Amino acid sequence: MFTLRLSAVLLSMGLVASVSAQSVRNEPVQPIAPYEVTDPAKVELGKKLFFDPRLSKSGFISCNSCHNMSMGGSDNIKTSIGDRWQQGPINSPTVLNSSLNLTQFWDGRADTLKDQAGGPIANPMEMGFTHELAIEVLQSIPQYVEEFKTVYGTEELTIDEVTDAIAVFEESLVTPNARFDLWLKGDDNVLTDQELEGYMLFRNNGCVACHNGVNLGGSSFQKMGVVEPYQTDNPAEGRSAVTGVDADRFNFKVPTLRNVELTYPYFHDGAVDTLTEAVDIMGRLQLGRHFTDEENANIVAFLKTLTGDQPQIILPILPPSHDDTPRPIPFD
Amino acid sequence: MFTLRLSAVLLSMGLVASVSAQSVRNEPVQPIAPYEVTDPAKVELGKKLFFDPRLSKSGFISCNSCHNMSMGGSDNIKTSIGDRWQQGPINSPTVLNSSLNLTQFWDGRADTLKDQAGGPIANPMEMGFTHELAIEVLQSIPQYVEEFKTVYGTEELTIDEVTDAIAVFEESLVTPNARFDLWLKGDDNVLTDQELEGYMLFRNNGCVACHNGVNLGGSSFQKMGVVEPYQTDNPAEGRSAVTGVDADRFNFKVPTLRNVELTYPYFHDGAVDTLTEAVDIMGRLQLGRHFTDEENANIVAFLKTLTGDQPQIILPILPPSHDDTPRPIPFD
Repeated sequence: MFTLRLSAVLLSMGLVASVSAQSVRNEPVQPIAPYEVTDPAKVELGKKLFFDPRLSKSGFISCNSCHNMSMGGSDNIKTSIGDRWQQGPINSPTVLNSSLNLTQFWDGRADTLKDQAGGPIANPMEMGFTHELAIEVLQSIPQYVEEFKTVYGTEELTIDEVTDAIAVFEESLVTPNARFDLWLKGDDNVLTDQELEGYMLFRNNGCVACHNGVNLGGSSFQKMGVVEPYQTDNPAEGRSAVTGVDADRFNFKVPTLRNVELTYPYFHDGAVDTLTEAVDIMGRLQLGRHFTDEENANIVAFLKTLTGDQPQIILPILPPSHDDTPRPIPFD
Repeated sequence: MFTLRLSAVLLSMGLVASVSAQSVRNEPVQPIAPYEVTDPAKVELGKKLFFDPRLSKSGFISCNSCHNMSMGGSDNIKTSIGDRWQQGPINSPTVLNSSLNLTQFWDGRADTLKDQAGGPIANPMEMGFTHELAIEVLQSIPQYVEEFKTVYGTEELTIDEVTDAIAVFEESLVTPNARFDLWLKGDDNVLTDQELEGYMLFRNNGCVACHNGVNLGGSSFQKMGVVEPYQTDNPAEGRSAVTGVDADRFNFKVPTLRNVELTYPYFHDGAVDTLTEAVDIMGRLQLGRHFTDEENANIVAFLKTLTGDQPQIILPILPPSHDDTPRPIPFD
């Protein structure tokens, strides 16, 4: 009966596919299930698009530029570099396990990965292109047309197929088998005493109130600076920019902690370089808790157990432009 | 006896490893031999460095940014984008098969891939960093220190090991098994009549005088604009910038034609987008030959048979920065 109820809760959170409730420890965090490819041609097409800088005006910026699969699906800089080296407004969140988030972007303005994927292409601060021009480029490349036809049965491309394929590729970017997941699945020997102590601190001090579920985050919006205000020069308003509700001001989507060892710098403004500092600030600002150096080190040790198997990406070979393909405009 | 002499000539050109003289047709072009990995740990380390944007000041530009392994080892834009979106002075040559060139860069200012690799890191127009700062970053990352120790037996990194590892990785980036290579090795059925006709035009009209050997280029410097002058706004002087000899002005290293279908746009200034236009200009300016539309199409068809097996690159997972690692400076 409990199992059924848990499944129902998880189903309502959209997370049931990632859980095998029967075999895991009863914790507020659940392990990730490996991704099972059901449509390899679509995943492969999406991978090409993800790596194709021709979706940008300059021909230089691809999805992978800011969600670098060599670096935890992020760019490891405070805020991203966009078209003409414009400074992005916010830290680039990891694409890894992003399918497990309830919404996309820090302010949750996209409900789905498909919705998200169209954003940066047409954002003048990011890839600086338009959906129409991106489609014109892809439509001019015979091998792409062929692949879209195979996958979607149409030779007339639209942004719908493009973002769908990118989203399906991104759904494949889960990172199972983190050591913590192995512990969740019952392996008593996989964590050190320090790591386990770190998890107990994380769980029993309330971190887990927001960073829970399969993705240790991604399932709610929370105010940045609950007990003490967070000081930042970054003008991002958070959730209120979407809802228009003043009470949502400075509410941000709780970021996943999976692979957090790889996704520095931290917070929506990317202001913090180290996990030690991030844990200290989170403890004080969100929980009113001053972790000792030892407690902090234990929590950091736990957080590093959340690094899972990184997706093994064979770099796609992009279909060459045709003589008629519109050329990138890297410089005005 | 002939075989021995041919081997000696090829040995003097550094090309003997790529040729099996016994079995190939007697043509001025020779097939590429597959790369045989002798030091996998060094190749893997070099791959990580090749893909690591922390070798740039901004943390955004890696070797792969301008020598993109998804796009024929080039960036497919006229001249590259460097630190702070500076416009590069010259078209980025492909890294594919670059070990088969006698020298590196369009003006041949680096004798070896190792010498070349250090250039962009410290060029204020490109990666905008210094060798000292790049070493400081790498030295601060425990996993890199470990890998350098395994490969080079030292824990004190210098730019020498860094560029050596990158060069060894780059040596692995050869593209064997182009359809033209299969023809060279005796397969009579692998080329169409048009492609073979294109090769005959290429060979008998003098293109092959410069675009010869294993790499169809890369073995000599030639004046751009022999019969007619080449008109360009690009200020690059070519070989004379290295030798100081006025007669070398506007002499450039003959680019390889391997994978030329993928390495658009063409010429040192990247001014030409299509093979059709490039063949037309080369015919007129270098050979005083006006190819008919049919001849041009045949030569282009031949050139597309030079696309070989692209290296299968499993994207490296880069070791994360340490708390002490100096952070990139993407914006001043």
